[in-house]
Amino acid sequence: MTKAIQSSVQVGELATGQALTVPLYTFSGSELFSPSVYIQANVHGAEVQGNAVIYQLMTLLEGYQVLGDITLAPLANPLGINQKSGEFTLGRFDPITGVNWNREYFDHNIKVQAWYTEHQHLNDNELFQAYRSMLVGACQARLELPFGLSTGHRLAVSLQTMAHQADIVLDLHTGPKSCKHLYCPEYDADAARFFSIPYTLIMPNSFGGAMDEATFCPWWQLTEYAASQGREFSVPVSAFTLELASQERIDLADALEDAKGILAYLSYRGVIAEKVTPADMPRFGCYLCDYKKFHAPKAGLIEYRAVLGEPLAAGQPLVNILRIDLYGTEQAYQAISLPMDCVPILHFASASVHQGTELYKVMTKVFSITH
Amino acid sequence: MTKAIQSSVQVGELATGQALTVPLYTFSGSELFSPSVYIQANVHGAEVQGNAVIYQLMTLLEGYQVLGDITLAPLANPLGINQKSGEFTLGRFDPITGVNWNREYFDHNIKVQAWYTEHQHLNDNELFQAYRSMLVGACQARLELPFGLSTGHRLAVSLQTMAHQADIVLDLHTGPKSCKHLYCPEYDADAARFFSIPYTLIMPNSFGGAMDEATFCPWWQLTEYAASQGREFSVPVSAFTLELASQERIDLADALEDAKGILAYLSYRGVIAEKVTPADMPRFGCYLCDYKKFHAPKAGLIEYRAVLGEPLAAGQPLVNILRIDLYGTEQAYQAISLPMDCVPILHFASASVHQGTELYKVMTKVFSITH
Amino acid sequence: MTKAIQSSVQVGELATGQALTVPLYTFSGSELFSPSVYIQANVHGAEVQGNAVIYQLMTLLEGYQVLGDITLAPLANPLGINQKSGEFTLGRFDPITGVNWNREYFDHNIKVQAWYTEHQHLNDNELFQAYRSMLVGACQARLELPFGLSTGHRLAVSLQTMAHQADIVLDLHTGPKSCKHLYCPEYDADAARFFSIPYTLIMPNSFGGAMDEATFCPWWQLTEYAASQGREFSVPVSAFTLELASQERIDLADALEDAKGILAYLSYRGVIAEKVTPADMPRFGCYLCDYKKFHAPKAGLIEYRAVLGEPLAAGQPLVNILRIDLYGTEQAYQAISLPMDCVPILHFASASVHQGTELYKVMTKVFSITH
Amino acid sequence: MTKAIQSSVQVGELATGQALTVPLYTFSGSELFSPSVYIQANVHGAEVQGNAVIYQLMTLLEGYQVLGDITLAPLANPLGINQKSGEFTLGRFDPITGVNWNREYFDHNIKVQAWYTEHQHLNDNELFQAYRSMLVGACQARLELPFGLSTGHRLAVSLQTMAHQADIVLDLHTGPKSCKHLYCPEYDADAARFFSIPYTLIMPNSFGGAMDEATFCPWWQLTEYAASQGREFSVPVSAFTLELASQERIDLADALEDAKGILAYLSYRGVIAEKVTPADMPRFGCYLCDYKKFHAPKAGLIEYRAVLGEPLAAGQPLVNILRIDLYGTEQAYQAISLPMDCVPILHFASASVHQGTELYKVMTKVFSITH
Repeated sequence: MTKAIQSSVQVGELATGQALTVPLYTFSGSELFSPSVYIQANVHGAEVQGNAVIYQLMTLLEGYQVLGDITLAPLANPLGINQKSGEFTLGRFDPITGVNWNREYFDHNIKVQAWYTEHQHLNDNELFQAYRSMLVGACQARLELPFGLSTGHRLAVSLQTMAHQADIVLDLHTGPKSCKHLYCPEYDADAARFFSIPYTLIMPNSFGGAMDEATFCPWWQLTEYAASQGREFSVPVSAFTLELASQERIDLADALEDAKGILAYLSYRGVIAEKVTPADMPRFGCYLCDYKKFHAPKAGLIEYRAVLGEPLAAGQPLVNILRIDLYGTEQAYQAISLPMDCVPILHFASASVHQGTELYKVMTKVFSITH
Repeated sequence: MTKAIQSSVQVGELATGQALTVPLYTFSGSELFSPSVYIQANVHGAEVQGNAVIYQLMTLLEGYQVLGDITLAPLANPLGINQKSGEFTLGRFDPITGVNWNREYFDHNIKVQAWYTEHQHLNDNELFQAYRSMLVGACQARLELPFGLSTGHRLAVSLQTMAHQADIVLDLHTGPKSCKHLYCPEYDADAARFFSIPYTLIMPNSFGGAMDEATFCPWWQLTEYAASQGREFSVPVSAFTLELASQERIDLADALEDAKGILAYLSYRGVIAEKVTPADMPRFGCYLCDYKKFHAPKAGLIEYRAVLGEPLAAGQPLVNILRIDLYGTEQAYQAISLPMDCVPILHFASASVHQGTELYKVMTKVFSITH
Repeated sequence: MTKAIQSSVQVGELATGQALTVPLYTFSGSELFSPSVYIQANVHGAEVQGNAVIYQLMTLLEGYQVLGDITLAPLANPLGINQKSGEFTLGRFDPITGVNWNREYFDHNIKVQAWYTEHQHLNDNELFQAYRSMLVGACQARLELPFGLSTGHRLAVSLQTMAHQADIVLDLHTGPKSCKHLYCPEYDADAARFFSIPYTLIMPNSFGGAMDEATFCPWWQLTEYAASQGREFSVPVSAFTLELASQERIDLADALEDAKGILAYLSYRGVIAEKVTPADMPRFGCYLCDYKKFHAPKAGLIEYRAVLGEPLAAGQPLVNILRIDLYGTEQAYQAISLPMDCVPILHFASASVHQGTELYKVMTKVFSITH
Repeated sequence: MTKAIQSSVQVGELATGQALTVPLYTFSGSELFSPSVYIQANVHGAEVQGNAVIYQLMTLLEGYQVLGDITLAPLANPLGINQKSGEFTLGRFDPITGVNWNREYFDHNIKVQAWYTEHQHLNDNELFQAYRSMLVGACQARLELPFGLSTGHRLAVSLQTMAHQADIVLDLHTGPKSCKHLYCPEYDADAARFFSIPYTLIMPNSFGGAMDEATFCPWWQLTEYAASQGREFSVPVSAFTLELASQERIDLADALEDAKGILAYLSYRGVIAEKVTPADMPRFGCYLCDYKKFHAPKAGLIEYRAVLGEPLAAGQPLVNILRIDLYGTEQAYQAISLPMDCVPILHFASASVHQGTELYKVMTKVFSITH
């Protein structure tokens, strides 16, 4: 039986002097060349379910033969998790600056051409190792900037330093009110067949500030440039964001399903010795450019009608808006619909909205992902 | 067909100079001596469902013969409703002072003996009218205090001024995550048989700061004192708080059920001419002193287990607490239970809690309310 | 040279599992019968200057002969201190419940008559010791309540447990924008001549929820009751709240002045062996009932005119209110004044206010406190 | 005497249905070809002093001959201004999304080459008018997007629509605790000699998301491209951000100084007929790339030492950090300094900070701006 070793990493310091630390659990793999894995959860403070998935995954892993190193970082944003405002966790952005905790990762902006030219004499393994060292080193250097770095950037870069040391990176999030969905880079779209997640967003290979992008983008750029120079290899690093249903929710039974899906992917990648079959379920995809935000066209009280994860035909009601201040007019209670077929993936958490609130995110032009 | 007349009342002013107003809808009753009614909703900003109930009630009332005046004040706390913090409405307390919006009503602290001695020569109707005038006048005087009054107290006293002019007062709230329950003063316990609400808290007749208490306490005190002087009459004013399930939720179909329950009570009281039968459902009661708050004995991530509104036997799990920082110990995932039978009525809204967070409120020593 | 011993006390636990701890510093007194002292700071999260005063006081104490035990608890509310909202510390109330951190202390509600009757055979020292044990024990029992206690009440009672073990309790606060002032119970008014604080509020001897009241009230009640039974002694415990100017401000030089004032009081009380003379400065008093809150009569942008700590004649401008939305009318820019002479003690921290915001607190009927 | 005409513009709608409106004041200029002006204030909710400057400027303008149209929009962000959190205004970002209100302006991303090629036959005035129409039209189109736009983007684009119709745009802000400083695009650096502002940041001509950049960037791009095609004209539009000292402060006397400075610039630009001389004061500049943010290297209580607006030599203390939890070590009270000469321009508003908080912004490589 494999057991996780516990340690922790300091990611900041609170005004009282208290250290901000993240617990780390490590499974040491038995095979040197098996892929290594980094999994974090709860970077957004209210998105707690990933911790339950890590709990179930660790419990499962104790019964498997672990070949590659696996590092798990639950409760990855202690400041965000502990920050309440009223009865809810205000965990999406730094309460001081407003900056989204998930947009603080370091964009390396690597001059790939120059770097490759200098290192092209290396064989693939050496090349990847040198590149990885450069990425890790750049993060470590940021943590020592003479004029300091912001609270959120320090947290993000501390986590990123660990992520860059792994071959597979999973960032466990949730939506507000949401069905499960996966962010998957285009070059790695095959991976979507393993997780216990019905909907997949196929992302372009560019940097948008999130952990998955911060992890895979430099590698994708290296791969592309090498290919342009006639040297072919697969992108050596995989990174995904798993959106594990709704925030403010802990469900251990459901977490077990997602832990099994992760295990199926790790099995496929050779991180564990045993074969784990993915869940037999329909899976669907959508390109990120077809993932649409719908903003409240007017203010009011919202009756959410569209069921998350179920197809909604054009013209069917998405929400009803109650405007009791307009009682007696046709504006008092109105259905709102979209002009195209879609699958609603998530909706806003509150039942009253200002004009412009992001009410729903919906997939359009959805396609089946075949087994 | 009866139609509501719309007006509004100003309850404050925002820093930009914008008036804070509450919409008012009035049905004029055809009978002078039928009881008058005041219904408000959404004094706590996130507790929006009462507006939907008012909407359905107004729609229903258009088809009935209204005998007593009915005033409806939805969206009664515009500052609280519009105050967001992250994706939720921070509507439980004044964001500046922290004072609960529902603890700002004026405690008249009437010297009943002196007042009664002076007015005992009046007949019942005159006595009640004089008492009511005194209550309304005292509220109006507060609004003119030379050193001003706080934002929350101004709102509360503005609403209270309207409530004191009615014979029946309904304050529509919700819990955080909650099943429906009713706060009912002991002297008026019969009323619990009419609303579409399965659980009733029988309150003592004392002032705790809420609207219902602010309304009925002075009248109960008058009634008690008169009785001690050998003059018997029923408490002339009724006031209830209806907790209409969970906050941050609009459900028009469910609102219709509660509107019908209110209509059944109004029918019983002779506010409408038609007979409306209450819903046929089991109803249960509990004395307020047996309504228990359970605070989180330790911090962690919460898996809510106990189903709201369903009996829970002693020793059955209320919650599980996940402490992934303690993985590998028996503290990592633990069930918490209570030592007595209870009915869980509401629980906290977030899935992660500090030590001491109010996790559940449960009824103990529950009894059936017979028809 | 005396040196402080460092320890800490746990006062709660955050959602991530992190312990909330308060640092403690203790000077052990050389004389058994010298009064013991408990000093805390920063129970309101933005009121940081008390920590600087504790720092300076500890530095000074190292050069004195300490006779009575002194316990110092800076940073006494770690949750409140670390809770930011925008660029400021949201430290006045529990962000979840809105309850003021300084209104969470336990009101013992002692049945003094019964207790005294049972213990009147004891001599004074024994009587005081038994009473103190009862107070400490009651606090410790609360921390073990079977249904738990709220986050804020746990913090408060944990601090109160330490306070009850001392003869002298100082609670270091600040106002929002404020000049220095002292809350002093009526029976202990003499003490006001020692602190480096120009303005003193003479409080009645009743419980209002704050630390000073929680500490001295039970003792004052005991003293009163014993006196009514013909047994005379001075109130055995002293407790004061020091308001050390404005929140969000650290000034070590000014902190030294306040540390010296505290030292002068401790010298007078025999806690240190050396004689320390209080600062030679005019001191003024006002009864709490003459301390007036002035609420914004209308909303707008505020130009604070009245200088804190300086007498303001009736009719002189307290504030100007700018209402640029009313440009062109006489309401656009208006002075507001009070109808009586006063000394403004503190004002609101922000320059824009809703109607009803507490703009100023002013002392009226101010009198000189002679040396 | 010229009088301002009052109107208003709707920029959103709150959950209760209340319209969010911004008051507008317009002076109609007597000369068709005099430059038109748009001035807004208080887009960040706590930065109120610009309203006082607008008040003083309007009062002054009544005594001048106004040649060009002047539109003034005080209280430009009603949602942000009214959003309190504790005693302060949480006005820097949308409380729901965290997005900085001043980073929501529309980036036109104009394809200048194509546009110019199509319109190069126009004379300068026609060219400018066509370009302006395109900018205004693009903003108006955004307000009608089929899937809506976010609350903050709607506000920003509504304001931007008005700004694009003017030749001179002034956006009145403040820092947190700050001395006065001006953001000035490089091409318009001469303008810095007119305002009553000692420190100027010379900005590159690129888009960063703020109002001034959103206004001048498209025009600078047009100018550059036309120059590359051999057609020379000055950038036809000027836009500046004025940082009028500290937030949460209204000072009418100081506002008069800034109003006079603005008047001096408007006089220079021919917006008023009379000659107004700028204040005789030393003025300094710094390139934006030499404007440095200093983040707290560790957490603690901050004693701000460096005086804003006064040169600070390398090695002189910027702040002292009090860490009373480390009393007895050399870390307990430490001075922090910078390794180069600078002028501190602004510092953080709170006296307690987490590690990484932006403590100071300082100008380095400061130069004199000659008259």
